[in-house]
Amino acid sequence: MNRKLLLISNSTNKGEDYLAWCKYLIEEFLTKNKIKEVLFIPYAGVSMGYDNYEKKVKDVFSTMGVRLYSIHKENDAKKAVNEAKCIAVGGGNTFHLVYELYKNGIMNLISQRCNQGLPYMGWSAGSNVAGLSLKTTNDMPIIEPESFDTMGLVPFQINPHYTDFFDPKHGGETRDDRLNEFIIVNPSIYVAAIREATALKLEDGNLSLVGRDNKMKVFHANMETKEYGLTDDINFLMK
Amino acid sequence: MNRKLLLISNSTNKGEDYLAWCKYLIEEFLTKNKIKEVLFIPYAGVSMGYDNYEKKVKDVFSTMGVRLYSIHKENDAKKAVNEAKCIAVGGGNTFHLVYELYKNGIMNLISQRCNQGLPYMGWSAGSNVAGLSLKTTNDMPIIEPESFDTMGLVPFQINPHYTDFFDPKHGGETRDDRLNEFIIVNPSIYVAAIREATALKLEDGNLSLVGRDNKMKVFHANMETKEYGLTDDINFLMK
Repeated sequence: MNRKLLLISNSTNKGEDYLAWCKYLIEEFLTKNKIKEVLFIPYAGVSMGYDNYEKKVKDVFSTMGVRLYSIHKENDAKKAVNEAKCIAVGGGNTFHLVYELYKNGIMNLISQRCNQGLPYMGWSAGSNVAGLSLKTTNDMPIIEPESFDTMGLVPFQINPHYTDFFDPKHGGETRDDRLNEFIIVNPSIYVAAIREATALKLEDGNLSLVGRDNKMKVFHANMETKEYGLTDDINFLMK
Repeated sequence: MNRKLLLISNSTNKGEDYLAWCKYLIEEFLTKNKIKEVLFIPYAGVSMGYDNYEKKVKDVFSTMGVRLYSIHKENDAKKAVNEAKCIAVGGGNTFHLVYELYKNGIMNLISQRCNQGLPYMGWSAGSNVAGLSLKTTNDMPIIEPESFDTMGLVPFQINPHYTDFFDPKHGGETRDDRLNEFIIVNPSIYVAAIREATALKLEDGNLSLVGRDNKMKVFHANMETKEYGLTDDINFLMK
């Protein structure tokens, strides 16, 4: 297996343009893999409509000289996946994304193709579904998908938009509380909690944290929660 | 149908004791319905263990002269529900609660009995499941339940721990963004978003907001989001 993955925590930093912080990572990924066209999956988008979502992303990719086209305008979603040169899955609501991926019959197909080397990039919900399941999403379950299982392009869970922050006046769970509950119920599985302005990159068989210097946190039932930075070896997650 | 419901947003306000803010509401509810023993459902609890959870709640109820006993110690969960004089469902992780309610075969049974007048109280996840589905929970989907459908003791959705607050440095969705996505996908359904230190009470066929003077917010696809206070008529939600 020679998987090529770029799994971005968040599209947009507060106060910055859409996909601005990670544009250099996307450009590097496309250049290294000689990608000139990208099949876009807008299914996580709920409120803006797929046409608007496609335009928003297409505008960014066109500045890199890459043609991006959305699966919602293709007659045959499976054929589109089979013929794609690269897949990009946008953020939004993870449950809606997973629901539509199953409904359109392409969850397992994308998984198969990308496990065989088709370049895959995603941000937020699009990174989430590259993991084993949606069980560490932060999103509201507004629609019931066929299954919680996702693509398994990496053998662990991703928690995008990871944050330590919590409203000091509010009584609910912190993000760490929630992820600690996940590992109690799923004790054999690692969770990679990636902060904003970071991404996970898998290329040439090497997994690394890239982006700004915001450490990721790894949760597992049998170890102390630990942070890893840009230069740390995190390939134990791939085993 | 003469349903008797007390659906509490949160067990604990920051800095106060467990169930302290809502103890007078629980006491009123138990007294009005002449309840001397309560069957407790601890299934939303993930990290503390059911024994500890039972003890924590039992200690509060015993100060009101009420015997509370947990379903996890009963040999036959269905029989326990059938013989219960009142049901109390505690907070925690809603997905875990729904998973266990189905696994133990009592989701529909509790629904039937409480629709026929068995008094029901819940807090947080326990209030969530009194609505139509878990689709407006704030919790992480750490385990996959048989279905997202819940008890339907009220014909709308509940969002407990509702808050307007959002970390100004973070780029993700606000609570309102998430609930607005829910009504886009589910345009016929009302969401009652109840702030901390409030509860919904249904008695004598009348639904009201009770607790401290923190207005609830109602979301629906065909109306402007609107706030309702302690003295407002909210019975339109029951239709």
